[in-house]
Amino acid sequence: MSSGDREAFEVRAIGWVRGGRTEPVDDAWGAVTSTIELDGAQLDPEAVRGLAGFSHVEVVFVFDRVAEASVCRGARRPRGNPAWPEVGILAQRARDRPNRIGTTVCRLVAVDPGRLTVIGLDAVDGTPVVDVKPYLPGFGPRGDVRQPAWAEELMAGYW
Amino acid sequence: MSSGDREAFEVRAIGWVRGGRTEPVDDAWGAVTSTIELDGAQLDPEAVRGLAGFSHVEVVFVFDRVAEASVCRGARRPRGNPAWPEVGILAQRARDRPNRIGTTVCRLVAVDPGRLTVIGLDAVDGTPVVDVKPYLPGFGPRGDVRQPAWAEELMAGYW
Repeated sequence: MSSGDREAFEVRAIGWVRGGRTEPVDDAWGAVTSTIELDGAQLDPEAVRGLAGFSHVEVVFVFDRVAEASVCRGARRPRGNPAWPEVGILAQRARDRPNRIGTTVCRLVAVDPGRLTVIGLDAVDGTPVVDVKPYLPGFGPRGDVRQPAWAEELMAGYW
Repeated sequence: MSSGDREAFEVRAIGWVRGGRTEPVDDAWGAVTSTIELDGAQLDPEAVRGLAGFSHVEVVFVFDRVAEASVCRGARRPRGNPAWPEVGILAQRARDRPNRIGTTVCRLVAVDPGRLTVIGLDAVDGTPVVDVKPYLPGFGPRGDVRQPAWAEELMAGYW
């Protein structure tokens, strides 16, 4: 780092996941419906104005059930699966990562006062949400996409 | 919120954007090349093992030049453009948002020890990076995507 670099930041929940699953299982998240209860202390009611014009949102959340002591800063096998290679924590989307931040694009099905209903959010009941952004197709990957075989295998049953 | 909800978290930079642009202009980010210098105090060298198997990464960063006092918690016009509607801060991807977190999918062109080179990262020189995840096509939106006209217009010159 350089002398002017900022190192640490506080983030505050702007809401919490309600409903959906209560345990962080690996697969079959696609049909899970849950709500995001927005915190009126962090957001004005107008913060969601116009959001219903988007079919999908990107939810940024904290895997708060992961103990900080169990965060991986090196490499591990995805899901501990011996058939898959040991890859770095930045080369996988595992929960036990530095800062424990998750991001997921999911379908937005309802916008009510103080509450968003989504389908396919892979975060358990009670998860702190730190941002919600609209999904714009233009923010998808530019150019051809390539991934290793293990990643494609892992996703086969994810949704 | 409920009694068990966690509200605040500390996140630490795992690296910083180096090079690319020095000013946060609005458009034409697509050809910008920059590097992410990883912090050896936060990550072991193996943290990026296997990352080169992915064509794209998702970078999570902090818009640290936005003063906390200027964060919008209600609605505003995107880019202040009078031709576009006033929409909530959660219905746009503006920088001055609660927690000031940005997420961008960009092309990964090189993985060197302690350093990633990317194209199309819309974050200025010095920006703190708090996570890097591989982009898996399966994490793209499921189902048809819809966005309002203003969003499509805004993206026309973005990359």
